[in-house]
Amino acid sequence: MMKINDLIFKFSKDLHNQADCLILPHVNADGDCIGSSVALNNFLKTQNIKSRILVEEKIPEKYRNLDPCRDIEVYDGREISEKFVVSLDTGDFKRLGKRGDALSGKISWNIDHHKTNTSFAINNFIDVGASSTGEIIYSILQVNKFAMDKDTASALFTAISTDTGGLRYSNTTSKSMRICADLLETGIDISEISHLAFDLMPYPKLLLKCIAIQKMDFFCDKKIAVISLGLSDYDFLGGKDEYFDGIVNITVNTEGVVAGALVRETDSGYKVNFRSNTDEIDVSVFAEALGGGGHNRASGCTIEASSLNDATEIVIAKLCGAV
Amino acid sequence: MMKINDLIFKFSKDLHNQADCLILPHVNADGDCIGSSVALNNFLKTQNIKSRILVEEKIPEKYRNLDPCRDIEVYDGREISEKFVVSLDTGDFKRLGKRGDALSGKISWNIDHHKTNTSFAINNFIDVGASSTGEIIYSILQVNKFAMDKDTASALFTAISTDTGGLRYSNTTSKSMRICADLLETGIDISEISHLAFDLMPYPKLLLKCIAIQKMDFFCDKKIAVISLGLSDYDFLGGKDEYFDGIVNITVNTEGVVAGALVRETDSGYKVNFRSNTDEIDVSVFAEALGGGGHNRASGCTIEASSLNDATEIVIAKLCGAV
Repeated sequence: MMKINDLIFKFSKDLHNQADCLILPHVNADGDCIGSSVALNNFLKTQNIKSRILVEEKIPEKYRNLDPCRDIEVYDGREISEKFVVSLDTGDFKRLGKRGDALSGKISWNIDHHKTNTSFAINNFIDVGASSTGEIIYSILQVNKFAMDKDTASALFTAISTDTGGLRYSNTTSKSMRICADLLETGIDISEISHLAFDLMPYPKLLLKCIAIQKMDFFCDKKIAVISLGLSDYDFLGGKDEYFDGIVNITVNTEGVVAGALVRETDSGYKVNFRSNTDEIDVSVFAEALGGGGHNRASGCTIEASSLNDATEIVIAKLCGAV
Repeated sequence: MMKINDLIFKFSKDLHNQADCLILPHVNADGDCIGSSVALNNFLKTQNIKSRILVEEKIPEKYRNLDPCRDIEVYDGREISEKFVVSLDTGDFKRLGKRGDALSGKISWNIDHHKTNTSFAINNFIDVGASSTGEIIYSILQVNKFAMDKDTASALFTAISTDTGGLRYSNTTSKSMRICADLLETGIDISEISHLAFDLMPYPKLLLKCIAIQKMDFFCDKKIAVISLGLSDYDFLGGKDEYFDGIVNITVNTEGVVAGALVRETDSGYKVNFRSNTDEIDVSVFAEALGGGGHNRASGCTIEASSLNDATEIVIAKLCGAV
């Protein structure tokens, strides 16, 4: 394995031999890959390297202002002419979607921080110690003596902040904090960035939260909470499954609850997300026993059951057996 | 005005002439004043100065683990023997409650970061540039070469984090971030601290959120959102008014909404909180016109009206007049 600094130098050298560059965020681009892409693109502009960011689908409205010059293009199936292609934050080749197919797998550099990265490119720059891809791009820009500006700082702050849950998750390091301190010195509006990234919510998501709260039941001295939703409870979402992100956390964010789950009926079985608030309850065990997997404090599975009620009973039994 | 560094030296010198010290957080102690108090108390222990923290009422459960040695005592009316008394994070003498009365106003040092601090003590150490009182205490400990330990770091991180909305509000400076980076190096569990401070919620508060979402109505092309609650909508709270903290933000955290309000019936009129998402709508103007006050983006007032409906109509008219 090359050292991180050596990788930065190798990538920078390679970059400076190019006339143009294509930047690829993963499908369903999130704050980290959009922010990283914009920052790298801004740097390339200062190096007179022609560059563009090509995404699989329209980026979320809340990240539009990270790209004031509209350098992000949505892939429309046209031939890709660039020879130098950099994928960002993409753990797996499949996460490049149709753009990956169009390139027949020829990715020059794969820059990422995911432990599970499959090293699918010609050059692979994987820093699993980084909280986010944004942190890696920051280091690349630093070594290249990029004069940090407010737009680039906003993009990088969004990247680091969204991948660390707003500097709250355990992947937040003192290095992440110091980078954010540096970015703050350019005068970025972190209150606005955080509002967009964390507070702002589509109205249907608010309604879903409300329904989840109403449908939450407590068991075992209120130490266990389970939210159980049938298809008709959420048909107003019109199939927008992404609204379920984080809904299960309502259980373990309720005072007194030590572990919880969300059980929801789908067209392909009953999807279950488990959460635990304590190292003493390892919910990966429950998910694995039911054919799924995950981590000690967050896991998931899909169960076959004859009804929502039956599926929910299975989940309650698992959780209550642990307290 | 003395410079901050001079104040640190004066306070430190004064402190080292004492055999004992009493630390007073304000009434309804929050994360900043509890965290600051614990950190100062931990420092005093290493200086062989006898010290205790005296609070007005029991501290919130979520902050109990900041005080593993149980150094925080609830005031029980007994005579206070300490002559050297330090108030922390307390903008106004009244915010010391019965403890202030018992001391007949003799506070040795008033250490705070609020602009509105009334300088009520013998010595006043007010640093309005600090994001939090925790940041001031950190500086005092640094100058005194305190060897930062994990418990003290957890207390100070809680202090700074809670007063900056988790390093998200505009009062967060690069200095705040760098201090947090230093604190992180002691190995504190910021994921757990943030979970307790920001995510964990009493069940009645969750229910209140849900009711607020259900009662939210939209006006003027959905740019305006108003939540209107009668007494019977929230009688299940049993008078716990603190659950209303932040409820009005649901309006401006809904995508597309530029300004909003919460109107709620109380025994003493209709309480209104206004919020704005944009500098173009100054909600302090509406509150002032209705006998209240506040800031451009957050203001409040109490209106006399013949019904909740009438009060709500007044509020809607103000907001819709601005878009």
